[in-house]
Amino acid sequence: MLGSPAMRIEILCTGDEVLTGAIVNTNFSYISQKLGDVGLEVKWGTTVGDDRESLLQAFRLAAERVDAVIVNGGLGPTVDDLSQEIAAQAAGVELVFNEEWFARMAEFFRRRSRVMPPSNRKQAMLPARAELLDNPIGTACGFAVDIGKARFFFTPGVPRELHRMLEEQVIPRLLATSGRPTASFLKRFHSYGLGESRVDSLLAGVETLAPDGSVKLGFRAHYPQIETKLTVRGTDMEDIRRKLAPVEQEVRKRLGNFIVAEDDRKLEGVVLEELARRQGSLAIVETFTGGAVAARLAPLPGADKVFRRGIVAGDPAQVRAAVGLGASSAASELTLPLAEAVARAARDQTGATHALAILIELDQGPDQIDFGGTISLAIATEQQVATRRSRMLGGREWLRLGAVEMALDCLRRHLKGLPVDERIDFEKV
Amino acid sequence: MLGSPAMRIEILCTGDEVLTGAIVNTNFSYISQKLGDVGLEVKWGTTVGDDRESLLQAFRLAAERVDAVIVNGGLGPTVDDLSQEIAAQAAGVELVFNEEWFARMAEFFRRRSRVMPPSNRKQAMLPARAELLDNPIGTACGFAVDIGKARFFFTPGVPRELHRMLEEQVIPRLLATSGRPTASFLKRFHSYGLGESRVDSLLAGVETLAPDGSVKLGFRAHYPQIETKLTVRGTDMEDIRRKLAPVEQEVRKRLGNFIVAEDDRKLEGVVLEELARRQGSLAIVETFTGGAVAARLAPLPGADKVFRRGIVAGDPAQVRAAVGLGASSAASELTLPLAEAVARAARDQTGATHALAILIELDQGPDQIDFGGTISLAIATEQQVATRRSRMLGGREWLRLGAVEMALDCLRRHLKGLPVDERIDFEKV
Repeated sequence: MLGSPAMRIEILCTGDEVLTGAIVNTNFSYISQKLGDVGLEVKWGTTVGDDRESLLQAFRLAAERVDAVIVNGGLGPTVDDLSQEIAAQAAGVELVFNEEWFARMAEFFRRRSRVMPPSNRKQAMLPARAELLDNPIGTACGFAVDIGKARFFFTPGVPRELHRMLEEQVIPRLLATSGRPTASFLKRFHSYGLGESRVDSLLAGVETLAPDGSVKLGFRAHYPQIETKLTVRGTDMEDIRRKLAPVEQEVRKRLGNFIVAEDDRKLEGVVLEELARRQGSLAIVETFTGGAVAARLAPLPGADKVFRRGIVAGDPAQVRAAVGLGASSAASELTLPLAEAVARAARDQTGATHALAILIELDQGPDQIDFGGTISLAIATEQQVATRRSRMLGGREWLRLGAVEMALDCLRRHLKGLPVDERIDFEKV
Repeated sequence: MLGSPAMRIEILCTGDEVLTGAIVNTNFSYISQKLGDVGLEVKWGTTVGDDRESLLQAFRLAAERVDAVIVNGGLGPTVDDLSQEIAAQAAGVELVFNEEWFARMAEFFRRRSRVMPPSNRKQAMLPARAELLDNPIGTACGFAVDIGKARFFFTPGVPRELHRMLEEQVIPRLLATSGRPTASFLKRFHSYGLGESRVDSLLAGVETLAPDGSVKLGFRAHYPQIETKLTVRGTDMEDIRRKLAPVEQEVRKRLGNFIVAEDDRKLEGVVLEELARRQGSLAIVETFTGGAVAARLAPLPGADKVFRRGIVAGDPAQVRAAVGLGASSAASELTLPLAEAVARAARDQTGATHALAILIELDQGPDQIDFGGTISLAIATEQQVATRRSRMLGGREWLRLGAVEMALDCLRRHLKGLPVDERIDFEKV
């Protein structure tokens, strides 16, 4: 921190589709999170429709209360896209035809062997003296302009265009203006099995291992996983790596076996890689999760070599039949003995190196306070069958999410040589 | 319409988790949609954090520019829940202890055999002269109070508590104030296979079959389905039914076979009901969709009697093996002949009355403009095998969503005696 007062930022989302709720405003949360990840704080959010009067009023209010405004949407070619026009009006300047961007658009259409419709010309009209913000993947050009005492950054509503422009154009400019060290890095850990308050208390004080508050700790809970985020600032990547190293190590030590993946990697990806590394293959048998365990793995790149078969069935007789087990009075319920037998049989039947069975005995009756289910899980390999039994409380959807995650995590633990039955915060002992 | 000027409404969302993007603000779109469904229009959206100064400023700005404000969040028992306190400050009144709500909370905890923490007392402190809005499922009581010339409605951030309070308490009050006929009804049609612009032009003018603009037509696209909404206002339900009837019939006639379900019913539910009605049962074999077709059906109430087995496999040899077909040089690709053979075999193997096979040959290479896949679909019954082949363009995720919907819709069409191969807007001929 260089001691400058924190920059105040507003996100201003425009468009009838967002205002009427026709689409959920994920752009807002995306922008706010990305700014938070580099230590910039959003102070205010505004949403207005495609309406001249509201837009002008919103721009003027934002110009008075913050230092920087990120405007999203309204840069398209149609008549209800009003951002450039109202920006010029609020800034008290003319709209000027931008030759450079018009040539870029022409090139964009030419490369796609399409004719540029006349309406697209509108997208090259920018407020006078606006700074162009490049959009390498679309025809909506971004721009920055001063309105009142605030700097306004106009971005497109199409998510992938917004994401790229925010990362490449807007955030660097905000960081430069904020007078902070401009290099920043976000380190992420994904954990499963610990509740948010447990993770919070386990990691208490971990930031102090880095000097000068250069590492900031944050969390994001999306059941059943928790994401732990370390935001690091420094003069360059080497400086950042040096500051991050002791904190990063300590987080790994404290969360231990519960870390399922880091950064852009995912639990299902880790499972697949571990299997691929040993030229293994996998069969999955599931009941109440209804194909949701298979659906996490089967679509991944490279899964075709590893994912051998997924089987979904409902009652015990169907489960037995599906893996070629005869009718039997033994193991006739969705409990651990059946899970073991089914995992073994599925492995034999498919020739996979690993077979996972996850059977769930759901409590009867409507979802209520003490509603839950019992999960019986077995992983069969040539050598052994590892098992886990767990009882969870919660509504059907909650249980389903938790069970899918537990199945994948047990498989990860088994493949990594970690205990598959370590107690987790979400289960009832 | 009674000719009164449209009521201006603002939605004001509070809370650091929403402002920082830690959670996506689905409450905003939910409120806005629900108001739109009864013909009320949202004019402005504001988001601020758990911060006294911002909240006060936001309340004052809203009080000046609109007639009604729905505030969401900040009614909890913790110190960062500030809505009641700032509401009282903005309204220029004291906070007053509400005996009635305190007794309700005490009862709430007693029924759950829990002791009420002292911090919960805070939730019974309301601005003087506030009107209580009942929350039958939580401890955060809602309230309505005037600030400036606007009526403010305070609602809890927990989605299911918000949903109920909005429906039972807030919307009836807004409709009463707006001076409109207070009875309203929302009729919904879910369609698959027609793009939004097609549905729009097919239904052009359909509202005019009802008198006096009493029926309003709207759409909501959530690929691959489109929802068509008819909002009807009237003096009572009989009046509404009379006005709706001709429009409803005309929509059914124009969208025809493409309507997959109406109102709260869903495509997968219709499929399940049709099968259950004829005491049928189902086996599903899928490849690239990775269990996602099964996952739409298997978790539904009553599915255990119908859903016999789901099988997921990757390459042709695995698909054949999974349904007990021997190796063969014929039908060795994920094309229509294999889909037919697999559907027949899956039916034989599982004893189900119906078997669905959906195999997808994906284009090779990275997602790009002309990337796509070819879907081969077969439905086997005792009498026949119905098939459909379809080529779609789009990225992997887009294809997956489209293929899952097509599989379920073909099954619906087959069960309803409709053509399974009717051309849809999303396919490339």
